[in-house]
Amino acid sequence: MGKAEGSAEDRLITRYFRPLASHPGALGLADDAAILVPPAGCDLVLKADAIIGGVHFFPEDPADAIACKALRVNLSDLAAKGAKPLGFLLSLALPDGSDDAWLASFADGLRADAQLYGCPLLGGDTDRTPGPAMVSIAAFGSVPHGGMVRRSGAKPGDYVFVSGTIGDAALGLKLRREPEVAQRYQLTPREREHLLARYLLPEPRLALSETIRLHASAATDVSDGLAGDLAKLCGASGVSAEIEIERVPFSDAAKRMIAADTDLRELAVTGGDDYEIVCAIPGEKRDAFRDAARAAAVAVTEIGLIAAGDAVAQFRDRNGHSLEFARPSFSHF
Amino acid sequence: MGKAEGSAEDRLITRYFRPLASHPGALGLADDAAILVPPAGCDLVLKADAIIGGVHFFPEDPADAIACKALRVNLSDLAAKGAKPLGFLLSLALPDGSDDAWLASFADGLRADAQLYGCPLLGGDTDRTPGPAMVSIAAFGSVPHGGMVRRSGAKPGDYVFVSGTIGDAALGLKLRREPEVAQRYQLTPREREHLLARYLLPEPRLALSETIRLHASAATDVSDGLAGDLAKLCGASGVSAEIEIERVPFSDAAKRMIAADTDLRELAVTGGDDYEIVCAIPGEKRDAFRDAARAAAVAVTEIGLIAAGDAVAQFRDRNGHSLEFARPSFSHF
Repeated sequence: MGKAEGSAEDRLITRYFRPLASHPGALGLADDAAILVPPAGCDLVLKADAIIGGVHFFPEDPADAIACKALRVNLSDLAAKGAKPLGFLLSLALPDGSDDAWLASFADGLRADAQLYGCPLLGGDTDRTPGPAMVSIAAFGSVPHGGMVRRSGAKPGDYVFVSGTIGDAALGLKLRREPEVAQRYQLTPREREHLLARYLLPEPRLALSETIRLHASAATDVSDGLAGDLAKLCGASGVSAEIEIERVPFSDAAKRMIAADTDLRELAVTGGDDYEIVCAIPGEKRDAFRDAARAAAVAVTEIGLIAAGDAVAQFRDRNGHSLEFARPSFSHF
Repeated sequence: MGKAEGSAEDRLITRYFRPLASHPGALGLADDAAILVPPAGCDLVLKADAIIGGVHFFPEDPADAIACKALRVNLSDLAAKGAKPLGFLLSLALPDGSDDAWLASFADGLRADAQLYGCPLLGGDTDRTPGPAMVSIAAFGSVPHGGMVRRSGAKPGDYVFVSGTIGDAALGLKLRREPEVAQRYQLTPREREHLLARYLLPEPRLALSETIRLHASAATDVSDGLAGDLAKLCGASGVSAEIEIERVPFSDAAKRMIAADTDLRELAVTGGDDYEIVCAIPGEKRDAFRDAARAAAVAVTEIGLIAAGDAVAQFRDRNGHSLEFARPSFSHF
């Protein structure tokens, strides 16, 4: 005899995840699949990215922050593509020994972000794993038909803009791994916290999404480092970029570390985990883009120009000398 | 300086996965996200399910079979919902030491199934993990607006049908874990192979998808065991089911094992990994359903009736005695 109350897995889903499944198409997580009725005249924008304990986060990180990071790294891509979030699917692998407190905190974090970003849980699955925790999310957004902003599309003469500040997360990760660094570089407690927080909890630039869609000729999110991600945009667009490193926006905390050790500037522009947006803006839209970004309350900084050429993102110092980076982009392989 | 050739991760994706990304919206896996233009008048059906080495497959299983299983467990859900596949996203976590031969085989398996089932790769990501391999897939299908077949909807008087045969995979898993069992129950080599293959490589019943959509009042795929999944359908529909265990379709191999050890019948109907479809068919559609299933070349068997009552799937033996199962449904928790 089988009863509908079902298994411990079902009870776990009912208790922790059903409250997040506010979307009618989630069917209360009580069916095999979810239903999404695409907005009329819109294309869907789809992204899947996973984070793994010991690789993308520290196993001892707060569970709610892990949940938020898993969702936000995907929302960051939707923002860079000019898309409005619709919902997400979750596959969660839990290590043996994960307790109810961990799960409750994880679900709390996910619920808060699902509400904050208007991106409800649509469905998914939960498993035990003999390995580290792994959170796989597939996120869905919409754009008016044909409107997704691509990496291709940048043209010589376009201006290169980047949102927020660059390098904080890579420097924050360095602080996590080498806590003594904070003292060595005489960071204030607030600067140290800023860098650590930027690694722990990225802020997807969804507030800039519509502005990107209306103004950018090309865009990408900065997840593997500004240098590498901009190079990919150049590759997809068949252009080069000329970037003045002095114009790349760094936070006060990052500036202090870079002032003390100029080698850290390379880490800042190649280390990744920024979850900012780098984009190309045609000259005739430059002022409107700045105005729209200001209205959206997201800082954007012009850092250089798109030029003819072949797939190179060239960074130059104040003397015009080109900078060579040993490892232009983060990679797991 | 960043060059567009990018990282080792990019090269891995280019070499092994770009050939699978035949869908124009995949953008050659060279952008942050994929584009899916939903078919006019259709709803999207969304499903995410992950498989983990040592949990859902044996780490030594052939890589192509692992890839196929990961996709097929999701396609099985689409089939049970009456949906036509559109594409999928992949998040792959690779253990240290995964070599090129493993990846090439994995990609080959995935490509073959993507073609076979008309479900191309849209995007995803690849990471290293200190844990076992984990393959997370989010699969997307379409149904005419409002047409997804749900677990709810079954009515008293509907007939309960199941596709294929039940219990093969659970018995196959037992053979994997206890190879001596094959000899104990005097299985022929062919019977043994049949059961092992049914565990290794499920066959999603996509050929039955349209038939389910046109005839079923409710349906679910059988992944956690016939008893438990049917109980969930009953729970969602607010009905009970009366099942004659003698009518449940078993393969010759399963019949031989059950004849030798009647306890294995419970394992067969509760063990899971069947990836068949159980559905409720209203009386007036019963003949048309049988005809359509025959035309689709998928065996379906009537095993009982939906009755009034509360969320119970009641299995009875030939004497009408109700069977009580110790563990009605597979669960990881």
